[in-house]
Amino acid sequence: MIDFTVSKNVAAMQPSSTIKAMQAAQALRASGADVIDLSVGEPDFDTPEFIKEAAWDALKHGKTKYTATAGIKALQDNLVKFYADQFGTEYKPSQVMATSGGKQAIFNAVVTAVNPGEEILIPKPYWVSFPEIAHFAGAKPVYIDTEETNFVLTAEQVKAAITPNSKLIILNSPSNPSGRVIPAGEFRKIVEVCHEHNILIISDECYLLFVYPPNEVFTAATLPAELRENICIAGSFSKTYAMTGWRMGYTIAREEWTKAMLKVQSHSTSHPASFAQYACAAALERWSESSAAIQDMLAEYEKRRAWFVPALQNIPGFKCDMPEGAFYAFPDVRGALKEGQGEMKVSDDLAKLLLEKAHVVTTDGAGFGAEGFVRISYAASMDRLQEAVERIRKVLEV
Amino acid sequence: MIDFTVSKNVAAMQPSSTIKAMQAAQALRASGADVIDLSVGEPDFDTPEFIKEAAWDALKHGKTKYTATAGIKALQDNLVKFYADQFGTEYKPSQVMATSGGKQAIFNAVVTAVNPGEEILIPKPYWVSFPEIAHFAGAKPVYIDTEETNFVLTAEQVKAAITPNSKLIILNSPSNPSGRVIPAGEFRKIVEVCHEHNILIISDECYLLFVYPPNEVFTAATLPAELRENICIAGSFSKTYAMTGWRMGYTIAREEWTKAMLKVQSHSTSHPASFAQYACAAALERWSESSAAIQDMLAEYEKRRAWFVPALQNIPGFKCDMPEGAFYAFPDVRGALKEGQGEMKVSDDLAKLLLEKAHVVTTDGAGFGAEGFVRISYAASMDRLQEAVERIRKVLEV
Repeated sequence: MIDFTVSKNVAAMQPSSTIKAMQAAQALRASGADVIDLSVGEPDFDTPEFIKEAAWDALKHGKTKYTATAGIKALQDNLVKFYADQFGTEYKPSQVMATSGGKQAIFNAVVTAVNPGEEILIPKPYWVSFPEIAHFAGAKPVYIDTEETNFVLTAEQVKAAITPNSKLIILNSPSNPSGRVIPAGEFRKIVEVCHEHNILIISDECYLLFVYPPNEVFTAATLPAELRENICIAGSFSKTYAMTGWRMGYTIAREEWTKAMLKVQSHSTSHPASFAQYACAAALERWSESSAAIQDMLAEYEKRRAWFVPALQNIPGFKCDMPEGAFYAFPDVRGALKEGQGEMKVSDDLAKLLLEKAHVVTTDGAGFGAEGFVRISYAASMDRLQEAVERIRKVLEV
Repeated sequence: MIDFTVSKNVAAMQPSSTIKAMQAAQALRASGADVIDLSVGEPDFDTPEFIKEAAWDALKHGKTKYTATAGIKALQDNLVKFYADQFGTEYKPSQVMATSGGKQAIFNAVVTAVNPGEEILIPKPYWVSFPEIAHFAGAKPVYIDTEETNFVLTAEQVKAAITPNSKLIILNSPSNPSGRVIPAGEFRKIVEVCHEHNILIISDECYLLFVYPPNEVFTAATLPAELRENICIAGSFSKTYAMTGWRMGYTIAREEWTKAMLKVQSHSTSHPASFAQYACAAALERWSESSAAIQDMLAEYEKRRAWFVPALQNIPGFKCDMPEGAFYAFPDVRGALKEGQGEMKVSDDLAKLLLEKAHVVTTDGAGFGAEGFVRISYAASMDRLQEAVERIRKVLEV
């Protein structure tokens, strides 16, 4: 048998733990179990009808051919206009490109900026792909612990983590998994610290509009131009428009960075599906309809949050703060772990127990750099959330 | 202004020259010119209606969510069945994964197998992305010249190019740009040489079914199992089903290699658009309809080839063999270059002249590693091909 050895950088990567959890859920469901999957990082709503119809319209009209690597002009223009209308920014279309999901936006931004051996600052808890993309690039992830500030990153913490080898930091607010939001003032201070030290920033804003009052929507796009020059905004249509399966994201960055990302994408995937681009252009074009759909979803998430998070907080051994954005509860479950009994020592054991005994799928916090926590999505109907809490309670009370 | 330096590997990449040509054509067209674009590597046919409808059906039924990284089960199963039915192979679904176009298939296969500094054997002329993906991986492209065998790679040539540092070879038959087909017997000899030297193989088969008699369709999938273990087949729906804009491709490889590719994809793009996967599953499922559409397209390409290639051959200074597969003429234009006159020294000058004076877009051969040649697609209507030949003739006869 001929030898196959995985390349070193790829060998250093872990498979996506959120995707693993999703696939475990699918396998259990295929076996006939009544599974409540609260592991998924996607809305339980369907894509708004008019967006689907825009895709069909494009298909019908033969929009089945290659597009520019950066995406169709209407999508670039409408993204520029969206940021201008909503946030008063003045980007040029040449600073905007379409990607196959927010994930590729981050992937492109990292590989174009970082050389092997350089350091990428990653606040904990982090979205699972951040460290793995760093490994792929042969870079060294340097983690910033934020538990003492309740998972809200501060400029002080960033400053303390910087070394001469720091090249890039990846920010994610609202955060997946913690639901925490970095206040605008602190965000700006973080950017100033990075600017001083010549450190590039990826601002993963894929939950941009999913913020619960009194917290406020904030995008790095609104920072003064001189503070924005080292920032690449990674955006996504996935959560905002309930379009996860469509694989539509984008970047907004300075032209040199964008050019480099276009070069990589022109040799890796070319561009997202042509008619999906037309659909996203329509979603932005018909903003009043989109906005209404988003407000409906947000109201529903808020209602669930109001019931679900206190219910989790009441489970013995769980400690669960109110998330400020996104749609995840991120309880500290260390109080429910039974040390020294040979079982349930770590949060992964708890997640496995919930999967096997309660058929409730959650995601172990360790995959996000937060051992002792579990991520539980409330992108599920109220009925299912109530049923899940009941089942979890039953299993843990034994 | 803060410093932005592109990462070294990405700095070593060139933007896709075929995409550049396409964008030059779009710019010229936008200026109002009657452009004949023969640079495009895509069918001028629209996607068959029933495939579009399968996508719309999936959209209507809410198939707008994440799928497994490898793609939906129906697509994996139907790919396995397609190869079994057409070629008598016995693959497992776990050896098959969906990618965002054939390009990502090759990208995934290279980055999972090759370490920085290792050598990738690339026969000339090559598809533009092969060397750039090698650069991205920090690998060293080692080119194999094939002009003396009329651009048909031989096992002898491969043997002569192997060094202790050779890790991988990328084969592409039918070839883009040359249209040459490696005969089955020679292909097997090449694979045997690679097997002996522990060299992995990517077989880019994106023009698999586009072969003109008396040449025969051949896939590496039909090789004996022990010879296939070091081969990753990169396939695509783009050309076969006129689906370029959909970005749908796939790989077939041993499980270890597939697992590594899944890991990379789970952190870069996740999966191709969900409903595009359903459409491709339908294209394979309803093979008799697809097959009829493909035969119609092939018959049309053959008709064009029969007129177009001799017409190019008759242009003073052009030498143009009949392509055996794909849909490109690849004339040797060195006879039309005027040395020492300060203009038209290289084939790029000729391509530029045709663009500016004839408004005919072609692609310079130098981008494919074949200076002195020009790639001219005949994926255009007969009228346009005739008009193009007339315009080229007029410009060159001056």
